[in-house]
Amino acid sequence: MQYHFSRRIENLHPSAIREILKNSDPNVISLAAGNPAVESFPVSEMKEIADRIFDTEAGFAFQYGITEGYPRLRQLVMQRQKEKFGIGTEKDGVMIISGGTQAMDLTTKVLANEGDTILSEDPAFVGALNTFRSYAAHLVGIPMEEDGMDIAALEKALEEEKNVRFLYTIPSFHNPLGICTSLEKRKQIYDLCARHGVMILEDNPYGELRFNGEDIPTLKSMDTEGIVIYTSSFSKVMSAGIRLGFVIAPQPVLDKMAVGKQAVDTHSNLFFQILIADYMEKYDYDGHIEMIRGLYRHKSGLMLDEIRKGFPPQVKYTTPQGGLFLWCTLPEGADMLQFVQFAKGKGVAIVPGSAFNVDESAVSRCFRLNYSTPTDEKLVQGTRILGEALREFLAK
Amino acid sequence: MQYHFSRRIENLHPSAIREILKNSDPNVISLAAGNPAVESFPVSEMKEIADRIFDTEAGFAFQYGITEGYPRLRQLVMQRQKEKFGIGTEKDGVMIISGGTQAMDLTTKVLANEGDTILSEDPAFVGALNTFRSYAAHLVGIPMEEDGMDIAALEKALEEEKNVRFLYTIPSFHNPLGICTSLEKRKQIYDLCARHGVMILEDNPYGELRFNGEDIPTLKSMDTEGIVIYTSSFSKVMSAGIRLGFVIAPQPVLDKMAVGKQAVDTHSNLFFQILIADYMEKYDYDGHIEMIRGLYRHKSGLMLDEIRKGFPPQVKYTTPQGGLFLWCTLPEGADMLQFVQFAKGKGVAIVPGSAFNVDESAVSRCFRLNYSTPTDEKLVQGTRILGEALREFLAK
Repeated sequence: MQYHFSRRIENLHPSAIREILKNSDPNVISLAAGNPAVESFPVSEMKEIADRIFDTEAGFAFQYGITEGYPRLRQLVMQRQKEKFGIGTEKDGVMIISGGTQAMDLTTKVLANEGDTILSEDPAFVGALNTFRSYAAHLVGIPMEEDGMDIAALEKALEEEKNVRFLYTIPSFHNPLGICTSLEKRKQIYDLCARHGVMILEDNPYGELRFNGEDIPTLKSMDTEGIVIYTSSFSKVMSAGIRLGFVIAPQPVLDKMAVGKQAVDTHSNLFFQILIADYMEKYDYDGHIEMIRGLYRHKSGLMLDEIRKGFPPQVKYTTPQGGLFLWCTLPEGADMLQFVQFAKGKGVAIVPGSAFNVDESAVSRCFRLNYSTPTDEKLVQGTRILGEALREFLAK
Repeated sequence: MQYHFSRRIENLHPSAIREILKNSDPNVISLAAGNPAVESFPVSEMKEIADRIFDTEAGFAFQYGITEGYPRLRQLVMQRQKEKFGIGTEKDGVMIISGGTQAMDLTTKVLANEGDTILSEDPAFVGALNTFRSYAAHLVGIPMEEDGMDIAALEKALEEEKNVRFLYTIPSFHNPLGICTSLEKRKQIYDLCARHGVMILEDNPYGELRFNGEDIPTLKSMDTEGIVIYTSSFSKVMSAGIRLGFVIAPQPVLDKMAVGKQAVDTHSNLFFQILIADYMEKYDYDGHIEMIRGLYRHKSGLMLDEIRKGFPPQVKYTTPQGGLFLWCTLPEGADMLQFVQFAKGKGVAIVPGSAFNVDESAVSRCFRLNYSTPTDEKLVQGTRILGEALREFLAK
């Protein structure tokens, strides 16, 4: 049989990162992952709640559920987002989804025809880019600066590109850059999109994981016009493997996303929706997040200490105030892809920056580092080896 | 803000069944659902296993997993399908998915461009039809007879339709018809598709739930050419709410489906993948399925007894040998939609047959009944009321 595949899938390649992780050699220290620290899962509390669900609600928890999600969890999420972050008006609704990636999938399904334009920060989370590619969308990258998108480039794209359906952004603790978009730029981005009638997909999986500095309001909290689709996930605060997140969006858009969700997975895992609702209601959710912040303050500190001590001065890096990542830039003339191979030979895996480029063929001198996944020991050891590798590689 | 939606979603309507279920009046007995019986979930065994996972594997179970699924579960599924049903060759692979609907989603994503043709049994499972519609595919229905598709109509469609990418079929205990495609027709369907180089999506969520008669080989067990994508689900044997199923397909197709799955939900709930693997390995999985068969033999018997006693003779119905549904046809001239309303007024909810039509505007004289969801008492009572309603309605 000669197989013929759809255009949308023919040009979509497996995620470079997942391929790196899949073929991982146990002797190589990985700074390539994007996994939350295992200590960030509240396992013993989850077990208590799971036991209760098994004893008193199994018939409900194991039956089909509602596409929009478990009502009590939806209510708790909406209430918390509103009270803590000023997110959501009476024109918005909330839906529980199967992890953050599903927000990218459903947003694109609902808003973009094949060939329509999606604007994205460049570089950006490769998982999101691949989802947009899987709809054969026309992707246009907006270059990133130290405090967020290049606003002039955004304005130009909004004016010149045809059929722009939405802008994709991670304003807080950007993946892969580790930076935050400034408040001023957030306002400019919101105003520009509102003026052009273009929706914003605000992806905020790390927003609660700030360990230094002060919170910056989300785009969604400014959303008087009903143009922001806001998504976050439980992956970094409860568990990544349970595949649960949420989306808050203007009701007419959310209704269409629910129709789309019926057609992709009917609804998300109900057992863990109940479990999270119980956890939010009866346990110290905020205290738990505070613990995770402390954990990542510590881990990012360990990595940054080693970077300061061991990286050659011509290597630039971002200093994150939250989230899971930082971003390094090699000096001009250095071959990043060659360095990634070189580092692997020395025993450290990192993700080439080109994996995050909107234009997959564009050259990059950058790579991404992750400090949330490795143990403290491996983190220090891995960053130290990377420093030695950099000195050796750049001296050649 | 004036919202503009994609063409694919503009014409997609919420599932009629889910809307019926959502607005369910507690005083109305529902024979409209498609839910497994609550007794079919092995709750106490699942709790034992869950406790063990919490105690010994939580760090792994709550972390990100592999897109293709938990390796041990994939292996157990493949082994069981091969040994018991002759499914899967060395050219096939297996992937764990987030419920059966995801097989429809990924198959369409991977095989069909917008406007390409998908052939489907008509009537067919409305969830699958909506998924195909969500890709703006050109849907062509093949009329169903008592023993499966009208083969002449299938042949004609394969010859005349352009860009036919796959045929969708539920050969065993069809939803909504409750019938099985005969062995002879299965062979004809396979041969015709192989000759035309058209893939088959064989949806088999109920295949193991035969309570009378003898098993008929699946299309996948005949698949020497590598044209069958086979999917089944754990929804009817473990739990519907956990959203887990599997797909067995030729490796090149499965590889593309995995790339597609990365872009929709990264991977399926890992905790329950481990739980099912443990259940299959250490508990009596076959014995559990045997128990469910007994349960549905009993429940279908209760419904059929009441139908035989109380339905007017001019109402035709199918006699299922497995699965969850049976299908009733009103005499010529009767207005089915009017009857569905009439029955609801009498206190029984049923699904209008038109919900399952490939052509949504086609007239239907049929409705679907479900016997797996209600308690025995409600089942008998509901079917009795329906009989009375039929007699009254048809006498008018």
